[in-house]
Amino acid sequence: MKAEIIAVGSELLTPDSSDTNSLYLTRQLNETGCEVHLKTIVGDDQKEIEGILRQALERSDLILFSGGLGPTMDDRTRVAVAAALGRPLAPDPKILENLRRKFASRGFRMSPNNEQQAEVIRGAEILDNRLGTAPGMWIEEGNRYIVLLPGPPRELKSILEDHVLPRIRKLTRDKHLETRSFYITGMTESELDSQLAPIYSAYPRIATTILAGTRHISVRLYRWTQEGSNSDDLDELAARIQDKIGLAIFSTKDESMEEVVGRMLQESKNTIAVAESCTAGMLGMHITRVPGSSEYFMGGIQCYSDTAKIELCGVPADLILAHGAVSAEVAEALARGVREALHASIGLSITGIAGPGGGSKEKPVGLVYIGISDGMHTESRHRIMPGDRESVRERSTYLALSWLRRFLMRDDP
Amino acid sequence: MKAEIIAVGSELLTPDSSDTNSLYLTRQLNETGCEVHLKTIVGDDQKEIEGILRQALERSDLILFSGGLGPTMDDRTRVAVAAALGRPLAPDPKILENLRRKFASRGFRMSPNNEQQAEVIRGAEILDNRLGTAPGMWIEEGNRYIVLLPGPPRELKSILEDHVLPRIRKLTRDKHLETRSFYITGMTESELDSQLAPIYSAYPRIATTILAGTRHISVRLYRWTQEGSNSDDLDELAARIQDKIGLAIFSTKDESMEEVVGRMLQESKNTIAVAESCTAGMLGMHITRVPGSSEYFMGGIQCYSDTAKIELCGVPADLILAHGAVSAEVAEALARGVREALHASIGLSITGIAGPGGGSKEKPVGLVYIGISDGMHTESRHRIMPGDRESVRERSTYLALSWLRRFLMRDDP
Repeated sequence: MKAEIIAVGSELLTPDSSDTNSLYLTRQLNETGCEVHLKTIVGDDQKEIEGILRQALERSDLILFSGGLGPTMDDRTRVAVAAALGRPLAPDPKILENLRRKFASRGFRMSPNNEQQAEVIRGAEILDNRLGTAPGMWIEEGNRYIVLLPGPPRELKSILEDHVLPRIRKLTRDKHLETRSFYITGMTESELDSQLAPIYSAYPRIATTILAGTRHISVRLYRWTQEGSNSDDLDELAARIQDKIGLAIFSTKDESMEEVVGRMLQESKNTIAVAESCTAGMLGMHITRVPGSSEYFMGGIQCYSDTAKIELCGVPADLILAHGAVSAEVAEALARGVREALHASIGLSITGIAGPGGGSKEKPVGLVYIGISDGMHTESRHRIMPGDRESVRERSTYLALSWLRRFLMRDDP
Repeated sequence: MKAEIIAVGSELLTPDSSDTNSLYLTRQLNETGCEVHLKTIVGDDQKEIEGILRQALERSDLILFSGGLGPTMDDRTRVAVAAALGRPLAPDPKILENLRRKFASRGFRMSPNNEQQAEVIRGAEILDNRLGTAPGMWIEEGNRYIVLLPGPPRELKSILEDHVLPRIRKLTRDKHLETRSFYITGMTESELDSQLAPIYSAYPRIATTILAGTRHISVRLYRWTQEGSNSDDLDELAARIQDKIGLAIFSTKDESMEEVVGRMLQESKNTIAVAESCTAGMLGMHITRVPGSSEYFMGGIQCYSDTAKIELCGVPADLILAHGAVSAEVAEALARGVREALHASIGLSITGIAGPGGGSKEKPVGLVYIGISDGMHTESRHRIMPGDRESVRERSTYLALSWLRRFLMRDDP
């Protein structure tokens, strides 16, 4: 069943406010087997709301409105939906009575503008709102279903769960969304797509999305499944992707790189210390986002100045003079030095030029060296990171975590 | 000018993801005098995108697309817009050459699917993307304007600011939104509102919003102004707010606390070092987000373990035994110690219980001590922060910066 969500409210079109109801609605709809293919956010404008509903009726089976059912002059959803459907609105005496009772029980007298909340579109089923005043509505229009929900999240949720989901489940009964996910580092979005497109394009029933972030790339496979049908093709495609890009996949659940690396450190009984020059703490901050990371994170040194590199991380001053602070030699010395200073089994270092200033022809902005040392082996790598200062620092942090993961994999039996 | 925003991407229709670009776009558009009257979120589906654009052309003067310009098979915005406008798409040799150069400079070979990023809609002006690969486009269609922007926020922002806003300003010229902003720390949202409401409610023509974030509270005043009209009442309200809450305002521009504090450190010729226990690098990371921060940030120690506190920050082991690592005494010793270890004029420390584990009745999760020392004076404060692990760490970081600001203000003549 194809669903769309229409959020009504001029406040949702300001720079400071966003429609969060639709995330909750989407989750609930997906679980009942409805796919949300469109979301619209429209102001408190009757003509605009009418226009959107007319278009929605041509493209969606199920149309959910949130908001615009309150008592004030700018609550226009009821009037607009009635107009678009060409149905009259009339006050419902039972709702009116209910409203009066709710106000009285809280010691208020109901003001006349509250009466519009008792207006019902002809043919609509009324959905009782036990947490507020404006009831919801369920309307059948030909083979389309239109649902009106109030905007306050608690009221919207209670009406959806009490009255709307049971009705939708009856309509969709045995259909739901199956997904598989892969989280990938160490390759670009287009490299990845050129490797995967020949594979996933052979499965037209499965929707594949590739999304690149600063931290990693995620690949998601989606397919609607009917009760009783099997998910063999989804498992088959997932296995072929796993075969193709194996090592680059660091997780198949919604799990961060720092969680994956944390688990590997713990399982291999390693501890880690970090020396951070251009990132100045970002790597340590990420590692310790994981609760319990004190079991393997010993600490670090934010060696922003040369003095800190020399005095706290034990980098020989000569080495900095000879090669510069941004060099393979210094990255390796930092990894060795911080490992010892913090009594860790592994030292991990980042030194680079985050920009915007400080670059040269030989050492451009974005050049970053990452060093790693376990006492036996010390090595380093470098990359030129694209983007602005913050992006260079984020990418460096994630690359360091990604190489730490590879380093720990080698120890695997 | 009536604007609408169309965000493209199937991932934006999942329960876990929302379109945040449109908030930024709305703010920028409002400031140039455009009203955003509708937002749509549509999946990577060519026919759907075409349909939405056709409707948009009937109702809006300016139509902004974000997303769907990347190199993968599911990036459909270019193709859909070309189809809806009935204009051909053709590769632009200059963009193609640029793309090849960008890839080469990072040591990658460009894969063929990247070539679709060089395809241009006939008649479009190309908007250079200096932070990524997919360029934007500016298209005039009758008296409508269509803008294509890439989805990654940094790229979208740079293209909007470099190329789109100047074009829109030419079109809207004599109507614009005037704003005044205040960024505030050290009081709660309701405290603030109870002080300000009696003031701003006397100015009904000015819209006032108060928005509380983890970092600070912002107060914004908005008013539409025609060329030639004056902004006396806006200035008057701004002055009354300034009088009322003076010291709590750390900035009146869109400037971060770390920029404000950085400027104060530089002006007072101070340098700073940080000792971070529960934040493990977050404070240093924030301070160094400001380009040029190496002039006053000497570095720091991520003293996650007691050993690091003792050996690297010079905290007496007895002090930790007597008072615990999360205590006023240890916070002060950390501030003193890190100041000396990194040869800074000021030491700033954070030690706390970020949770979810580790709390007790006397020292609950969320308890955080912040220490500060300039060699002459050392002091500390504590707070119990609400929220989850990440929220406790962020609030602690911002509180440390906020107290550093107050500390530096005392030195002011």
